[in-house]
Amino acid sequence: MGSSRFTASLTLVVIMTFSYKSFSWMGVNASDVPTSCNHYCNQTLESRHQCYKRCEKLAHKNGYKIYGYPYSPNTRRVLAVLHEKGLSYDPITVDLVAGEQKKPQFLSLNPFGLVPVFLDGNLKLTESRAISEYIATVHRSRGSQLLNHNSCKAMGTQTMWRNIESFEFDPPASILTMELSTKPRIGLKTDYKLVNETEPKLEKVLDIYEERLKNSRYLAGDSFTLADLYHLPNIQYLMDTPTKRLFINRPNVHIWVVKITARPAWKKACDVKAWYGKKRN
Amino acid sequence: MGSSRFTASLTLVVIMTFSYKSFSWMGVNASDVPTSCNHYCNQTLESRHQCYKRCEKLAHKNGYKIYGYPYSPNTRRVLAVLHEKGLSYDPITVDLVAGEQKKPQFLSLNPFGLVPVFLDGNLKLTESRAISEYIATVHRSRGSQLLNHNSCKAMGTQTMWRNIESFEFDPPASILTMELSTKPRIGLKTDYKLVNETEPKLEKVLDIYEERLKNSRYLAGDSFTLADLYHLPNIQYLMDTPTKRLFINRPNVHIWVVKITARPAWKKACDVKAWYGKKRN
Repeated sequence: MGSSRFTASLTLVVIMTFSYKSFSWMGVNASDVPTSCNHYCNQTLESRHQCYKRCEKLAHKNGYKIYGYPYSPNTRRVLAVLHEKGLSYDPITVDLVAGEQKKPQFLSLNPFGLVPVFLDGNLKLTESRAISEYIATVHRSRGSQLLNHNSCKAMGTQTMWRNIESFEFDPPASILTMELSTKPRIGLKTDYKLVNETEPKLEKVLDIYEERLKNSRYLAGDSFTLADLYHLPNIQYLMDTPTKRLFINRPNVHIWVVKITARPAWKKACDVKAWYGKKRN
Repeated sequence: MGSSRFTASLTLVVIMTFSYKSFSWMGVNASDVPTSCNHYCNQTLESRHQCYKRCEKLAHKNGYKIYGYPYSPNTRRVLAVLHEKGLSYDPITVDLVAGEQKKPQFLSLNPFGLVPVFLDGNLKLTESRAISEYIATVHRSRGSQLLNHNSCKAMGTQTMWRNIESFEFDPPASILTMELSTKPRIGLKTDYKLVNETEPKLEKVLDIYEERLKNSRYLAGDSFTLADLYHLPNIQYLMDTPTKRLFINRPNVHIWVVKITARPAWKKACDVKAWYGKKRN
């Protein structure tokens, strides 16, 4: 038993050594790095810093490109993750108001006609939450720890709260953001009947959040994770609309909202001037 | 450099040995098993079988409980994962037609009033996709390999296709399942105006799937993963409705549908008699 464990570990040393050597010879993108790289670092204690440094070097060699629109909630979700991780990126503007997302040039990049699109070398990803999870996993050892995967229980709980955002919070919150924030900004008329039908749905979700946040600092536990971050884009817009009252009337939800919207990375994600300041197209 | 790698690996051996010893002394649930357990097995070659066996023993000690309804698409999604992994479970029926999901007893279990609810010891999870991901991760080394996480690129691609299911496919597909399958089954009237508005939305998604499946056996690559599995519940119901034509008119989508719906695990997930045969409440 002890002997087989030792043999196995020696094999592991050989695999790891070989992998690192191979990668130091090649120019690779994050997408080519074995998922074992950062995980291996998490298992070691003494050389952790050096190990992380090596993974980072592999994972962010060629920079990231993000096609998006700085007012788009889905674009901001990914920007928040990039800033939490302290990663640089090249922004490429897709003007949603001008309908650029429906033009052939953009549709060839994402046939769904949606921003953001994220490029990491030859890997192209769409869907803001998938991109966020990808970045948080590849760079798990850098910047804010957005994934709490120390135990299966922590992993399961966080995955559940990420899905609650996607399937329970986002549907009513996105409708309210569109009707009360986006439409007025671009000169379209708000559908107040829809607003009145949707607010009670959001209230039911927030009642459950209020209970959860009585006993937990953040949704998935005592630290800020992707589960909280995913909520930021809609909440930020809704706090400038009458729907704000649904959040501030619930004391624990309110504390949570103040805490997560105050994060420096989030402020940077909402900085429209900074996006255009980086303009390259 | 070589020396620090060796020290790191020795530390890993010590951590692993200590962890396994600790766990063999305790009665633990899957939720308590460190995420490193199965991952460690994936890194070793020679003792892999023994290592997997040990992880499995830790991870499924006390059995799983699932509150659900055997006709519910979301319940079936989780059952499919359990059967793909060859895991046993105790089904507890929540009769959705009788409205049991809105009664206080069930709401105390899941305040959203939704099935399924999954219990693994003292860990309670809701949201079918979160439960599926949890089971597939904890039991990654058992049964069908539902996660392809061999590289960051594979992981990112699969995460993207899982999100495409959630945000692009599921919204129109769920509406059509409800209107054309669920409502007629429980004696409610189909809203054909809604059906006519929704089918073109599903068609747009299926056009993109058709292109993808020209070059890829499954959505996330050449093997069946959670990204395919997540589609099964809606597709199964829609293949018994007029919407079936949208799938069979697209040759690559059709091949994919035939392939994924024929999986033995999926047949078991749809076996309503088997669910009630296991009835324990």
